Amino acid sequence: MTTPSLLQKLTDALRCMPGVGPKSAQRIAYHLLARDRAGASRLGEILQEAVEKIGHCSVCRTFTEHEVCELCASPRRDDSQLCVVEGPQDILAIEQATDYRGRYFVLLGRLSPLDGIGPENLGLDQLTRRLDEHVVKELIVAVSTTMEGEATAHYLRGIAHDAGIRITRIAYGVPIGGELEFVDRGTLSHAIASRREL
Amino acid sequence: MTTPSLLQKLTDALRCMPGVGPKSAQRIAYHLLARDRAGASRLGEILQEAVEKIGHCSVCRTFTEHEVCELCASPRRDDSQLCVVEGPQDILAIEQATDYRGRYFVLLGRLSPLDGIGPENLGLDQLTRRLDEHVVKELIVAVSTTMEGEATAHYLRGIAHDAGIRITRIAYGVPIGGELEFVDRGTLSHAIASRREL
Repeated sequence: MTTPSLLQKLTDALRCMPGVGPKSAQRIAYHLLARDRAGASRLGEILQEAVEKIGHCSVCRTFTEHEVCELCASPRRDDSQLCVVEGPQDILAIEQATDYRGRYFVLLGRLSPLDGIGPENLGLDQLTRRLDEHVVKELIVAVSTTMEGEATAHYLRGIAHDAGIRITRIAYGVPIGGELEFVDRGTLSHAIASRREL
Repeated sequence: MTTPSLLQKLTDALRCMPGVGPKSAQRIAYHLLARDRAGASRLGEILQEAVEKIGHCSVCRTFTEHEVCELCASPRRDDSQLCVVEGPQDILAIEQATDYRGRYFVLLGRLSPLDGIGPENLGLDQLTRRLDEHVVKELIVAVSTTMEGEATAHYLRGIAHDAGIRITRIAYGVPIGGELEFVDRGTLSHAIASRREL
Protein backbone atom coordinates (compact mmCIF):
# COMPACT_ATOMS: atom_id res chain seq x y z
CA MET A 1 0.00 0.00 0.00
CA THR A 2 1.66 3.19 -1.17
CA THR A 3 -0.69 6.13 -0.53
CA PRO A 4 -2.53 6.19 2.78
CA SER A 5 -6.30 5.94 2.58
CA LEU A 6 -8.45 8.98 3.30
CA LEU A 7 -9.52 7.31 6.54
CA GLN A 8 -5.85 6.96 7.50
CA LYS A 9 -5.25 10.61 6.64
CA LEU A 10 -8.22 11.60 8.80
CA THR A 11 -6.89 9.54 11.71
CA ASP A 12 -3.48 11.18 11.34
CA ALA A 13 -4.96 14.68 11.08
CA LEU A 14 -7.01 14.17 14.26
CA ARG A 15 -3.78 13.73 16.19
CA CYS A 16 -3.06 17.47 16.07
CA MET A 17 -5.37 17.71 19.07
CA PRO A 18 -3.81 17.49 22.52
CA GLY A 19 -4.40 14.18 24.29
CA VAL A 20 -5.41 12.36 21.11
CA GLY A 21 -3.15 9.37 20.44
CA PRO A 22 -3.43 6.79 17.65
CA LYS A 23 -6.15 4.77 19.42
CA SER A 24 -8.43 7.70 20.22
CA ALA A 25 -7.88 9.23 16.79
CA GLN A 26 -9.09 5.99 15.25
CA ARG A 27 -12.07 5.82 17.59
CA ILE A 28 -13.01 9.44 16.79
CA ALA A 29 -12.67 8.90 13.03
CA TYR A 30 -14.91 5.83 13.04
CA HIS A 31 -17.43 7.49 15.34
CA LEU A 32 -17.73 10.59 13.14
CA LEU A 33 -18.05 8.60 9.91
CA ALA A 34 -20.55 6.15 11.35
CA ARG A 35 -22.64 8.42 13.53
CA ASP A 36 -22.09 12.11 13.09
CA ARG A 37 -21.16 13.13 9.57
CA ALA A 38 -23.08 16.38 9.93
CA GLY A 39 -21.13 17.25 13.07
CA ALA A 40 -17.84 16.32 11.41
CA SER A 41 -18.61 18.41 8.37
CA ARG A 42 -19.56 21.40 10.52
CA LEU A 43 -16.42 20.95 12.64
CA GLY A 44 -14.35 20.89 9.45
CA GLU A 45 -15.90 24.14 8.27
CA ILE A 46 -15.55 25.92 11.60
CA LEU A 47 -11.95 24.79 12.07
CA GLN A 48 -11.02 26.41 8.78
CA GLU A 49 -13.03 29.54 9.47
CA ALA A 50 -11.55 29.83 12.97
CA VAL A 51 -7.97 29.46 11.79
CA GLU A 52 -8.59 32.03 9.10
CA LYS A 53 -10.49 34.62 11.11
CA ILE A 54 -9.50 34.37 14.77
CA GLY A 55 -6.61 36.67 15.53
CA HIS A 56 -5.57 38.60 18.60
CA CYS A 57 -7.27 41.56 20.26
CA SER A 58 -5.23 44.68 19.53
CA VAL A 59 -5.72 45.85 23.12
CA CYS A 60 -5.28 42.78 25.33
CA ARG A 61 -3.94 40.15 22.88
CA THR A 62 -6.58 37.51 23.65
CA PHE A 63 -8.19 35.49 20.84
CA THR A 64 -10.95 37.26 18.94
CA GLU A 65 -12.28 37.48 15.41
CA HIS A 66 -12.69 41.25 15.87
CA GLU A 67 -10.15 44.07 16.06
CA VAL A 68 -10.91 44.53 19.78
CA CYS A 69 -12.32 41.71 21.94
CA GLU A 70 -15.69 41.88 23.64
CA LEU A 71 -14.17 42.33 27.07
CA CYS A 72 -11.88 45.19 26.06
CA ALA A 73 -14.75 46.83 24.17
CA SER A 74 -17.18 46.57 27.08
CA PRO A 75 -17.91 49.90 28.80
CA ARG A 76 -18.88 48.06 31.96
CA ARG A 77 -15.38 47.06 33.11
CA ASP A 78 -13.14 48.82 35.58
CA ASP A 79 -10.27 50.49 33.70
CA SER A 80 -8.25 51.00 36.86
CA GLN A 81 -7.44 47.30 37.31
CA LEU A 82 -5.43 45.29 34.82
CA CYS A 83 -4.87 41.58 35.31
CA VAL A 84 -1.94 40.01 33.48
CA VAL A 85 -2.38 36.36 32.50
CA GLU A 86 -0.36 33.93 30.42
CA GLY A 87 -3.07 32.70 28.08
CA PRO A 88 -6.59 33.44 26.81
CA GLN A 89 -7.90 30.42 28.69
CA ASP A 90 -6.87 32.04 31.98
CA ILE A 91 -9.31 34.91 31.32
CA LEU A 92 -12.13 32.42 31.02
CA ALA A 93 -11.11 30.69 34.24
CA ILE A 94 -11.01 33.99 36.17
CA GLU A 95 -14.27 35.23 34.64
CA GLN A 96 -16.06 32.00 35.52
CA ALA A 97 -14.74 31.73 39.08
CA THR A 98 -14.34 35.26 40.42
CA ASP A 99 -16.11 38.60 40.49
CA TYR A 100 -13.11 40.46 39.06
CA ARG A 101 -14.45 43.31 36.92
CA GLY A 102 -11.24 44.92 35.65
CA ARG A 103 -9.45 44.51 32.34
CA TYR A 104 -6.97 41.86 31.17
CA PHE A 105 -3.68 41.68 29.37
CA VAL A 106 -2.60 38.39 27.81
CA LEU A 107 1.11 37.60 27.50
CA LEU A 108 0.59 34.57 25.23
CA GLY A 109 3.53 32.92 26.96
CA ARG A 110 6.13 33.48 29.65
CA LEU A 111 9.58 35.02 29.62
CA SER A 112 12.02 32.32 28.60
CA PRO A 113 15.27 33.74 27.21
CA LEU A 114 16.63 30.24 26.59
CA ASP A 115 13.75 29.57 24.20
CA GLY A 116 14.17 33.00 22.65
CA ILE A 117 11.01 34.39 24.27
CA GLY A 118 11.82 37.94 25.37
CA PRO A 119 9.70 40.89 26.63
CA GLU A 120 8.85 41.94 23.07
CA ASN A 121 7.31 38.53 22.32
CA LEU A 122 4.98 38.93 25.29
CA GLY A 123 3.78 42.38 24.27
CA LEU A 124 5.47 43.94 27.27
CA ASP A 125 6.36 47.08 25.28
CA GLN A 126 2.64 47.44 24.54
CA LEU A 127 1.86 46.91 28.24
CA THR A 128 4.45 49.53 29.23
CA ARG A 129 2.81 52.08 26.94
CA ARG A 130 -0.57 51.24 28.42
CA LEU A 131 0.67 51.73 31.98
CA ASP A 132 2.24 55.04 30.97
CA GLU A 133 -1.25 56.35 30.17
CA HIS A 134 -1.91 56.18 33.95
CA VAL A 135 -5.48 54.92 33.60
CA VAL A 136 -4.50 51.63 35.21
CA LYS A 137 -4.01 52.02 38.97
CA GLU A 138 -3.30 48.40 39.88
CA LEU A 139 -1.53 45.70 37.90
CA ILE A 140 -2.57 42.24 39.10
CA VAL A 141 -0.13 39.48 38.20
CA ALA A 142 -1.82 36.11 37.64
CA VAL A 143 0.95 34.12 35.97
CA SER A 144 2.03 30.62 36.88
CA THR A 145 4.61 29.83 39.55
CA THR A 146 6.98 28.07 37.20
CA MET A 147 10.50 29.41 36.86
CA GLU A 148 9.50 31.29 33.68
CA GLY A 149 6.39 32.60 35.46
CA GLU A 150 8.55 33.93 38.28
CA ALA A 151 10.87 35.63 35.82
CA THR A 152 7.83 37.15 34.11
CA ALA A 153 6.43 38.39 37.44
CA HIS A 154 9.79 39.91 38.28
CA TYR A 155 9.91 41.74 34.96
CA LEU A 156 6.33 42.99 35.41
CA ARG A 157 7.30 44.40 38.81
CA GLY A 158 10.03 46.41 37.11
CA ILE A 159 7.59 47.85 34.56
CA ALA A 160 5.00 48.72 37.20
CA HIS A 161 7.57 50.36 39.48
CA ASP A 162 8.91 52.41 36.57
CA ALA A 163 5.38 53.59 35.81
CA GLY A 164 4.71 54.22 39.50
CA ILE A 165 1.74 51.84 39.52
CA ARG A 166 0.68 49.50 42.33
CA ILE A 167 1.43 45.87 41.51
CA THR A 168 -0.12 42.85 43.26
CA ARG A 169 0.06 39.12 42.71
CA ILE A 170 -2.71 36.58 43.26
CA ALA A 171 -2.29 34.38 46.34
CA TYR A 172 -0.70 30.96 46.00
CA GLY A 173 -1.05 28.30 48.67
CA VAL A 174 -3.04 25.28 49.77
CA PRO A 175 -6.26 24.99 47.72
CA ILE A 176 -9.46 25.78 49.60
CA GLY A 177 -11.00 22.54 50.81
CA GLY A 178 -7.77 20.69 50.10
CA GLU A 179 -6.40 18.33 52.69
CA LEU A 180 -2.83 19.04 53.73
CA GLU A 181 -1.62 15.50 53.29
CA PHE A 182 -2.54 15.51 49.61
CA VAL A 183 -0.99 18.88 48.77
CA ASP A 184 2.27 18.70 46.83
CA ARG A 185 5.50 19.67 48.60
CA GLY A 186 6.15 22.84 46.62
CA THR A 187 2.73 24.27 47.36
CA LEU A 188 2.91 23.33 51.02
CA SER A 189 6.35 24.81 51.48
CA HIS A 190 5.18 28.00 49.73
CA ALA A 191 2.10 28.11 51.97
CA ILE A 192 4.21 27.84 55.12
CA ALA A 193 6.71 30.46 53.92
CA SER A 194 3.89 32.85 52.95
CA ARG A 195 1.96 32.44 56.23
CA ARG A 196 0.09 35.48 57.54
CA GLU A 197 -0.93 36.81 60.98
CA LEU A 198 -4.25 35.47 62.18
CA MET B 1 -23.97 38.88 24.22
CA THR B 2 -26.31 37.69 21.49
CA THR B 3 -24.32 35.79 18.85
CA PRO B 4 -21.69 33.36 20.12
CA SER B 5 -18.10 34.18 19.20
CA LEU B 6 -16.29 32.13 16.60
CA LEU B 7 -14.18 30.66 19.40
CA GLN B 8 -17.37 29.60 21.18
CA LYS B 9 -18.68 28.05 17.96
CA LEU B 10 -15.41 26.15 17.55
CA THR B 11 -15.61 24.87 21.13
CA ASP B 12 -19.20 23.74 20.53
CA ALA B 13 -18.33 22.08 17.22
CA LEU B 14 -15.46 20.12 18.80
CA ARG B 15 -17.96 18.40 21.06
CA CYS B 16 -19.19 16.21 18.22
CA MET B 17 -16.22 14.00 19.04
CA PRO B 18 -16.76 11.15 21.50
CA GLY B 19 -15.28 11.78 24.93
CA VAL B 20 -14.90 15.52 24.39
CA GLY B 21 -16.82 17.51 27.01
CA PRO B 22 -16.94 21.29 27.45
CA LYS B 23 -13.62 21.47 29.29
CA SER B 24 -11.62 19.41 26.80
CA ALA B 25 -13.28 21.16 23.87
CA GLN B 26 -12.09 24.47 25.27
CA ARG B 27 -8.60 23.12 25.88
CA ILE B 28 -8.41 21.74 22.34
CA ALA B 29 -9.68 25.00 20.79
CA TYR B 30 -7.10 27.11 22.66
CA HIS B 31 -4.33 24.65 21.90
CA LEU B 32 -5.06 24.61 18.18
CA LEU B 33 -5.32 28.39 17.90
CA ALA B 34 -2.22 29.05 19.97
CA ARG B 35 0.04 26.26 18.80
CA ASP B 36 -1.12 24.37 15.77
CA ARG B 37 -3.08 26.44 13.30
CA ALA B 38 -1.59 24.50 10.40
CA GLY B 39 -2.73 21.21 11.94
CA ALA B 40 -6.19 22.63 12.64
CA SER B 41 -6.56 23.92 9.12
CA ARG B 42 -5.48 20.58 7.67
CA LEU B 43 -7.84 18.72 10.00
CA GLY B 44 -10.65 21.01 8.86
CA GLU B 45 -9.95 20.24 5.22
CA ILE B 46 -9.64 16.49 5.72
CA LEU B 47 -12.80 16.29 7.83
CA GLN B 48 -14.78 17.83 5.00
CA GLU B 49 -13.10 15.69 2.36
CA ALA B 50 -13.63 12.53 4.42
CA VAL B 51 -17.31 13.22 5.03
CA GLU B 52 -17.79 13.92 1.36
CA LYS B 53 -15.78 11.05 -0.12
CA ILE B 54 -15.73 8.16 2.34
CA GLY B 55 -18.61 5.81 1.71
CA HIS B 56 -19.06 2.09 2.11
CA CYS B 57 -17.39 -0.75 0.22
CA SER B 58 -19.96 -2.29 -2.13
CA VAL B 59 -18.70 -5.77 -1.25
CA CYS B 60 -18.10 -5.77 2.53
CA ARG B 61 -19.68 -2.44 3.63
CA THR B 62 -16.57 -1.15 5.45
CA PHE B 63 -15.51 2.49 5.09
CA THR B 64 -13.64 3.34 1.92
CA GLU B 65 -13.33 6.20 -0.53
CA HIS B 66 -13.35 3.67 -3.38
CA GLU B 67 -16.10 1.50 -4.85
CA VAL B 68 -14.47 -1.61 -3.40
CA CYS B 69 -12.15 -1.48 -0.36
CA GLU B 70 -8.52 -2.47 -0.47
CA LEU B 71 -9.11 -5.67 1.45
CA CYS B 72 -11.95 -6.87 -0.78
CA ALA B 73 -9.94 -5.94 -3.87
CA SER B 74 -6.81 -7.77 -2.72
CA PRO B 75 -6.11 -11.00 -4.65
CA ARG B 76 -4.08 -12.30 -1.70
CA ARG B 77 -6.97 -13.10 0.64
CA ASP B 78 -8.69 -16.42 1.17
CA ASP B 79 -12.16 -16.28 -0.41
CA SER B 80 -13.32 -19.38 1.44
CA GLN B 81 -13.45 -17.68 4.84
CA LEU B 82 -15.76 -14.78 5.63
CA CYS B 83 -15.64 -13.06 9.00
CA VAL B 84 -18.72 -11.09 10.04
CA VAL B 85 -18.07 -8.11 12.30
CA GLU B 86 -20.23 -5.29 13.63
CA GLY B 87 -18.08 -2.31 12.64
CA PRO B 88 -15.18 -1.28 10.40
CA GLN B 89 -12.98 -0.80 13.47
CA ASP B 90 -13.31 -4.53 14.24
CA ILE B 91 -11.57 -5.35 10.94
CA LEU B 92 -8.60 -3.25 12.00
CA ALA B 93 -8.47 -4.94 15.40
CA ILE B 94 -8.52 -8.43 13.86
CA GLU B 95 -5.98 -7.49 11.16
CA GLN B 96 -3.59 -6.06 13.73
CA ALA B 97 -3.88 -8.91 16.23
CA THR B 98 -4.38 -12.10 14.26
CA ASP B 99 -3.14 -13.89 11.18
CA TYR B 100 -6.62 -14.25 9.72
CA ARG B 101 -6.32 -14.04 5.94
CA GLY B 102 -9.94 -14.41 4.82
CA ARG B 103 -12.48 -11.78 3.84
CA TYR B 104 -14.79 -9.66 5.98
CA PHE B 105 -18.39 -8.56 6.02
CA VAL B 106 -19.40 -5.53 8.08
CA LEU B 107 -22.91 -5.32 9.52
CA LEU B 108 -22.61 -1.67 10.58
CA GLY B 109 -24.72 -2.48 13.63
CA ARG B 110 -26.55 -5.30 15.36
CA LEU B 111 -30.06 -6.66 15.05
CA SER B 112 -32.27 -4.60 17.29
CA PRO B 113 -35.93 -4.77 16.29
CA LEU B 114 -36.91 -2.40 19.12
CA ASP B 115 -34.72 0.30 17.57
CA GLY B 116 -36.00 -0.57 14.13
CA ILE B 117 -32.76 -2.24 13.03
CA GLY B 118 -33.72 -5.31 11.03
CA PRO B 119 -31.79 -7.76 8.78
CA GLU B 120 -32.10 -5.43 5.77
CA ASN B 121 -30.33 -2.60 7.67
CA LEU B 122 -27.39 -4.88 8.33
CA GLY B 123 -26.98 -5.92 4.71
CA LEU B 124 -28.00 -9.47 5.53
CA ASP B 125 -29.82 -9.88 2.20
CA GLN B 126 -26.51 -8.98 0.50
CA LEU B 127 -24.71 -11.50 2.74
CA THR B 128 -27.27 -14.18 1.89
CA ARG B 129 -26.69 -13.63 -1.84
CA ARG B 130 -22.94 -13.87 -1.28
CA LEU B 131 -23.24 -17.18 0.60
CA ASP B 132 -25.45 -18.54 -2.17
CA GLU B 133 -22.51 -18.18 -4.57
CA HIS B 134 -20.86 -21.00 -2.55
CA VAL B 135 -17.38 -19.50 -2.72
CA VAL B 136 -17.42 -18.99 1.04
CA LYS B 137 -16.93 -22.26 2.90
CA GLU B 138 -16.87 -20.94 6.47
CA LEU B 139 -18.72 -18.02 8.02
CA ILE B 140 -16.91 -16.78 11.15
CA VAL B 141 -19.11 -14.78 13.50
CA ALA B 142 -17.18 -12.12 15.45
CA VAL B 143 -20.00 -10.01 16.86
CA SER B 144 -20.29 -8.82 20.44
CA THR B 145 -21.90 -10.83 23.22
CA THR B 146 -24.58 -8.26 23.97
CA MET B 147 -28.21 -9.25 23.67
CA GLU B 148 -28.36 -7.70 20.19
CA GLY B 149 -25.11 -9.44 19.27
CA GLU B 150 -26.58 -12.78 20.30
CA ALA B 151 -29.71 -12.15 18.25
CA THR B 152 -27.47 -11.25 15.29
CA ALA B 153 -25.42 -14.44 15.73
CA HIS B 154 -28.62 -16.48 15.88
CA TYR B 155 -29.87 -14.92 12.65
CA LEU B 156 -26.52 -15.52 10.95
CA ARG B 157 -26.71 -19.19 11.93
CA GLY B 158 -30.04 -19.40 10.12
CA ILE B 159 -28.60 -17.88 6.95
CA ALA B 160 -25.53 -20.15 6.98
CA HIS B 161 -27.60 -23.27 7.60
CA ASP B 162 -29.94 -22.36 4.75
CA ALA B 163 -26.94 -21.95 2.45
CA GLY B 164 -25.39 -25.17 3.78
CA ILE B 165 -22.25 -23.39 4.88
CA ARG B 166 -20.15 -24.09 7.98
CA ILE B 167 -20.59 -21.39 10.63
CA THR B 168 -18.23 -20.79 13.58
CA ARG B 169 -18.03 -18.19 16.29
CA ILE B 170 -14.89 -16.75 17.87
CA ALA B 171 -14.15 -17.97 21.39
CA TYR B 172 -15.28 -15.92 24.39
CA GLY B 173 -13.84 -16.42 27.84
CA VAL B 174 -11.22 -15.26 30.32
CA PRO B 175 -8.68 -13.00 28.56
CA ILE B 176 -5.22 -14.52 28.09
CA GLY B 177 -2.96 -13.37 30.92
CA GLY B 178 -5.98 -12.15 32.88
CA GLU B 179 -6.25 -13.01 36.54
CA LEU B 180 -9.46 -14.77 37.49
CA GLU B 181 -10.25 -12.48 40.40
CA PHE B 182 -10.36 -9.42 38.12
CA VAL B 183 -12.53 -10.98 35.42
CA ASP B 184 -16.15 -9.78 35.40
CA ARG B 185 -18.87 -12.21 36.46
CA GLY B 186 -20.48 -12.57 33.05
CA THR B 187 -17.21 -13.54 31.38
CA LEU B 188 -16.26 -15.92 34.16
CA SER B 189 -19.63 -17.66 34.17
CA HIS B 190 -19.44 -17.98 30.36
CA ALA B 191 -15.91 -19.39 30.66
CA ILE B 192 -17.04 -22.05 33.14
CA ALA B 193 -20.11 -22.97 31.08
CA SER B 194 -18.01 -23.24 27.90
CA ARG B 195 -15.23 -25.32 29.49
CA ARG B 196 -13.50 -27.89 27.24
CA GLU B 197 -11.77 -31.25 27.77
CA LEU B 198 -8.06 -30.95 28.59
